[in-house]
Amino acid sequence: MERTYINDLPGKIGGEVSIAGWIDVRRDHGKLIFIDLRDKSGLVQMVALPNNAEAHAAAQTVRPEWVVEIRGKVNKRPEKMVNADLPTGAIEIEVLEIKVLARAEELPFDKDSELNLDTYLDNLPLTLRRQEVQAVFRVQARIINAFREFLIGEGFTEAQVPKLTGSDAEGGAAVFPVEYFGHTAYLATSPQLYKQILVGVFERVFATGNMYRAEKHSTTRHLNEYTSLDLEMGFIKDHTDIMALEQRFLTYLSEVLAADCTHEFKLFKAEIPTVGEKIPTWKLREAQEIIKKEFGEDCTKEPDLEPQHERWLSEYAKKEFGSDFAFITHYPVKKRPFYTYEDEADPGFTKSFDLLFRGVEITTGGQRIHEYDKLVENIKAWGLKPEKFSYYLQAFKYGMPPEGGLAIGLERLTAKLLGIENVKQATLFPRDLNRIDTLLSKPDSN
Amino acid sequence: MERTYINDLPGKIGGEVSIAGWIDVRRDHGKLIFIDLRDKSGLVQMVALPNNAEAHAAAQTVRPEWVVEIRGKVNKRPEKMVNADLPTGAIEIEVLEIKVLARAEELPFDKDSELNLDTYLDNLPLTLRRQEVQAVFRVQARIINAFREFLIGEGFTEAQVPKLTGSDAEGGAAVFPVEYFGHTAYLATSPQLYKQILVGVFERVFATGNMYRAEKHSTTRHLNEYTSLDLEMGFIKDHTDIMALEQRFLTYLSEVLAADCTHEFKLFKAEIPTVGEKIPTWKLREAQEIIKKEFGEDCTKEPDLEPQHERWLSEYAKKEFGSDFAFITHYPVKKRPFYTYEDEADPGFTKSFDLLFRGVEITTGGQRIHEYDKLVENIKAWGLKPEKFSYYLQAFKYGMPPEGGLAIGLERLTAKLLGIENVKQATLFPRDLNRIDTLLSKPDSN
Repeated sequence: MERTYINDLPGKIGGEVSIAGWIDVRRDHGKLIFIDLRDKSGLVQMVALPNNAEAHAAAQTVRPEWVVEIRGKVNKRPEKMVNADLPTGAIEIEVLEIKVLARAEELPFDKDSELNLDTYLDNLPLTLRRQEVQAVFRVQARIINAFREFLIGEGFTEAQVPKLTGSDAEGGAAVFPVEYFGHTAYLATSPQLYKQILVGVFERVFATGNMYRAEKHSTTRHLNEYTSLDLEMGFIKDHTDIMALEQRFLTYLSEVLAADCTHEFKLFKAEIPTVGEKIPTWKLREAQEIIKKEFGEDCTKEPDLEPQHERWLSEYAKKEFGSDFAFITHYPVKKRPFYTYEDEADPGFTKSFDLLFRGVEITTGGQRIHEYDKLVENIKAWGLKPEKFSYYLQAFKYGMPPEGGLAIGLERLTAKLLGIENVKQATLFPRDLNRIDTLLSKPDSN
Repeated sequence: MERTYINDLPGKIGGEVSIAGWIDVRRDHGKLIFIDLRDKSGLVQMVALPNNAEAHAAAQTVRPEWVVEIRGKVNKRPEKMVNADLPTGAIEIEVLEIKVLARAEELPFDKDSELNLDTYLDNLPLTLRRQEVQAVFRVQARIINAFREFLIGEGFTEAQVPKLTGSDAEGGAAVFPVEYFGHTAYLATSPQLYKQILVGVFERVFATGNMYRAEKHSTTRHLNEYTSLDLEMGFIKDHTDIMALEQRFLTYLSEVLAADCTHEFKLFKAEIPTVGEKIPTWKLREAQEIIKKEFGEDCTKEPDLEPQHERWLSEYAKKEFGSDFAFITHYPVKKRPFYTYEDEADPGFTKSFDLLFRGVEITTGGQRIHEYDKLVENIKAWGLKPEKFSYYLQAFKYGMPPEGGLAIGLERLTAKLLGIENVKQATLFPRDLNRIDTLLSKPDSN
């Protein structure tokens, strides 16, 4: 008999079916044995009755996480037993036969027990199976694909950009060195230079993939290996074209999540953001004035925002404009990388932006310098050597239109969407200062 | 005026349009100046007439790769001037106004000049702009997205798997060491162990991303950083379920390429493969008998196929079955990684397969061992330490269904589809023994 996925069972009331999955929970009431079975589509309650001696005996032996194939009958539940929270809550499977595909050892902790972060991470092959944890990564898969779908629709071409580079691309970031056939290579901190080169080829380009930051901080917002959603496009007016594109993407994303992920958002009691007509947009200096006026802290002399400032601005955007998002533009020239475009109309400040979402920055973007001479000049002004950028500079030497782009951190976006505190819990296998899968031993004992 | 993309121009005959792009070629006939303009959609011929003095003067100054915005009129070409090879071959743009967005320096070589591989690679920001080179990566983008579309349709979940790992996952492969906060980490050679873990979570999972091989060979088939299209699925009967899935994917891919990439295949005079009812499938030993009988070389004692053997088998599959593809199954146990399933019905040989396509292996796959005890036993038999795999082994300790999967090398598939000799030319920014963007200096001078 062909396998039926659990969430398709309600359409088969009265029929005999073959289902398969993991024993999620087993409750032995003596005569009646209740088993919740879990597969990729959902969860269903089954019952083994004493009149079927063989199935009943088998139901006595199975344990949580055993993998089984079940032949069963789809029965309607009595009205008062219906569980409205579950797609299969109006049915129950009467177990006719159990075939064990794989056994499992006794679990190291209860399915629903609260775990500290290290225990959770030490046991990911098991803890990732929890319904609410699975949900995070189903949402994440939907986000990354929405990004691609949207951009393909906008005429972008996907590029496979290298993560193994000859030098630290932008200067300044902490990088991981790689031993490369007797040379030192580095893990890329961003696909920035490559995606810019590719504007000269495809005009509109995107890349999705891992990037690396060798920063030693251990916060709830940072990862050493993360997934960057990158785009870059030519023939723009200025950075506002990029911001408008991001706003359209976010609108699309909200629609997609509302269509495909309401179940997951419900599990997290999280709201899918609505993107209004126009995301509130302030220059950094305006934002600092808002903070001073509304929250009483004078940060108007600072060249950047602190995390607390970002939280305040998000709070203000929500309160005053009903928006989960806020754009901050015009960071000072010296706070942005060498390729950032200075605003001629506002000297000393750049055509750059950050996007804040529910208190945290999820995007950095802007217009880039497309003029070769200006770019070389800036590389020098940033204390870098143009010779080190000769490969990249070819793209500008041979004709580059005005262009810009942005990058979104996938894990951070996922976490903020679902209201997850620590970005590590929105990363399948997070790497940090102390952990690659398991905790690292002390460096000197390595 | 809103910009029109070049390939949309034939719908606007008689109208005035704004177009933008790069000067591809400029032919100055004195009175008439012809300019081919290139944008992301295509190429169009423009003409500057002497009666428009300003536009004519501007047309005299522009040079190849300058980026320009053109106001022009869409005229029909006289019948005998129509170029049937070009989507815009029946029209010509009369230049009304030229606005220069960016200049370009004189090119280091002619647009169409034959280049040796090193020159091509040294100048990728420029050489990637060539029409036939762009085409390679448009096809590649279509392939990777077809892979995702197909698998999402089959109920797979995308996973972001780490490329930074604690040890060489499978044992045996050459790995790049990374300096990781005082520890030594490694670049992943495959997402194998992670995707298997995730079968326990999502049942069906795929991952697309860069992988790393620190192998020192310098061939036309190998890359040190490549893109792996990986999938893994549970609840299979055996490896033939995976092979059947791949056959369905290839059928889908052919359809997609026929719908979206005929122009690119035409440029390369390459044929989109047709996938027949059933891809010819031989056990390794049967394949070796075919080679002996048909090509006169006795390799029946070998545990694996040499490149020449793969070419012969492809030749034979094409000749006898009209197939561009051939599956080879049942490699010896000791030639495959520790997690490969032995065929109980054919002891000493595995439920594994390679897929040959036009003379080269593009996929390796098979059923994996899902039983914990057997897996531990095999890890030991392969001379590896189970403790080093304790993280991975949790997935099997706590219930794993029969499962299997495969990996496809994206660049190799792209190259073979288009008939490109060297896989480096199907890689945007290839890394090899001697090159990361530019040629590496000698190790001892580094």
